[in-house]
Amino acid sequence: MTPEIRAKLKALGRELSPEMLGGTQAMFAELNHGLDPRTVVKRDFAYGEDARHRLDLFRRDNISGAPVFVFLHGGGFMMGDKHTEGSPFYSNMGDFAARQGWLGVTATYRLAPDNRFPSGVEDLTALVDWLRANVEDYGGDPDKIVLSGQSAGASHVANYLAHARDHAAGLAGAVFMSGVYDTTTCEDNPFNRAYYGDDRKAWGVASPLAGLLTSPIPMQFSVAEFDPVDFHKQAAQVVRQWVEAHDQWPEMHLLSGHNHLSPAACIGSDQKEVERMIAGFVGRVTA
Amino acid sequence: MTPEIRAKLKALGRELSPEMLGGTQAMFAELNHGLDPRTVVKRDFAYGEDARHRLDLFRRDNISGAPVFVFLHGGGFMMGDKHTEGSPFYSNMGDFAARQGWLGVTATYRLAPDNRFPSGVEDLTALVDWLRANVEDYGGDPDKIVLSGQSAGASHVANYLAHARDHAAGLAGAVFMSGVYDTTTCEDNPFNRAYYGDDRKAWGVASPLAGLLTSPIPMQFSVAEFDPVDFHKQAAQVVRQWVEAHDQWPEMHLLSGHNHLSPAACIGSDQKEVERMIAGFVGRVTA
Repeated sequence: MTPEIRAKLKALGRELSPEMLGGTQAMFAELNHGLDPRTVVKRDFAYGEDARHRLDLFRRDNISGAPVFVFLHGGGFMMGDKHTEGSPFYSNMGDFAARQGWLGVTATYRLAPDNRFPSGVEDLTALVDWLRANVEDYGGDPDKIVLSGQSAGASHVANYLAHARDHAAGLAGAVFMSGVYDTTTCEDNPFNRAYYGDDRKAWGVASPLAGLLTSPIPMQFSVAEFDPVDFHKQAAQVVRQWVEAHDQWPEMHLLSGHNHLSPAACIGSDQKEVERMIAGFVGRVTA
Repeated sequence: MTPEIRAKLKALGRELSPEMLGGTQAMFAELNHGLDPRTVVKRDFAYGEDARHRLDLFRRDNISGAPVFVFLHGGGFMMGDKHTEGSPFYSNMGDFAARQGWLGVTATYRLAPDNRFPSGVEDLTALVDWLRANVEDYGGDPDKIVLSGQSAGASHVANYLAHARDHAAGLAGAVFMSGVYDTTTCEDNPFNRAYYGDDRKAWGVASPLAGLLTSPIPMQFSVAEFDPVDFHKQAAQVVRQWVEAHDQWPEMHLLSGHNHLSPAACIGSDQKEVERMIAGFVGRVTA
């Protein structure tokens, strides 16, 4: 990351303020190179009955047996979308996958507070079912599916791995960017409350951490230098328990100079460190 | 890192076996591009009275006011050198600094068991005194000194920061690669025993962790994927206590695919991720 971009992100602060969120999106929208002209996009496949059960596909012509890279957006469980007209987000994640020769997938899911835990687990189960049945038609290998998510999207992927363990078996990997992994220790805030409910003491049963620690699926985690403090505490909790369980540091990366949004927002710009990190992992687990 | 290099390092295992140590050195010796022809080297300045109080300088012509990057080699407190004739190690670290436009310094220190804690603190105090008095003559800025170390070298730097706190004040930064930072929880092994003494219970007083947590000097840590387990536990301990003390993840990087020796050994090869990591940090703290 250039010192100039780092300084701007640092100045926006760590809190999830409208200035930080809007400022980060605006900055990286301008730096984004847009969809590669060779990327073929097909939008709005339905993977379930809800209006939010939709996914977009991104690929180059003539791929076959390719890794399938799925991105779940964030938005505090209550907001966010796979694509906003006139914005590069988050089609940039699908385009990134297409540029690697993979089949890229961006998907939406049902939102809180109308939909609460375990709605995300149900949505991801339906999504993975659709992918397993259909990706071959688009050049993807159903045995090379990697799920990724940012913030609430990472939490949904974590919950799916932990609570739909048998269904998730056979995934090639999971990529978690700035997620909450332990609902017994995470912050009590309006976002978590909207999804996990008003009774803080009841959140423990939803916690994916124990399930992640015993999952055989390869995982890559990252935490951003300017993430809000609760995400730092969550990442530290993962490291601590992982080393205790496995005598091995988890694949947990610190993204220097990044904030909560920038690791996904920078994809498709000239800042390549996150693309390299993810491509390295997906390459290894789908080799 | 390429999948081929990763596979070779993984096959060498995590333990500090002769095969792992020799195999890693041989592999990266072959991949090393050698000293850049523009790098000017001056060897064996004495920074103290012991035969091991020696340092080498690396730079481009005509630098001035440059960051000063110092590398302390590892070797279990009992072995190692700044330079071995016919080998690229560890002049590659000095050459890396020169390629960035910095003044590079590689240094040796007295060895255990003849010299025990706090001999390293004394050696680094003398080394930093020498640098503060002399680097301007070679184009370095005495206010932009960054100390780095690998393994036992990292431990010496940590101990100097923690136990010679006032003397270390004014350093621009410290880079720790695969070190031991908490002698109350580290493994009881022959290397630590050689330096910290035979009474395991007495090691606690030497522990630099508390001093690091309250040091104002910017620090970058890294741990290698195939480091022996005790280095993973040490790194987890730093993360855990740092987040508790600062509400902030430390600058702790996981080096995917690397083993205990490769982060320093890869410098000067085509594998640039460690060079980028260190250059990013040094650039920030000396800007």
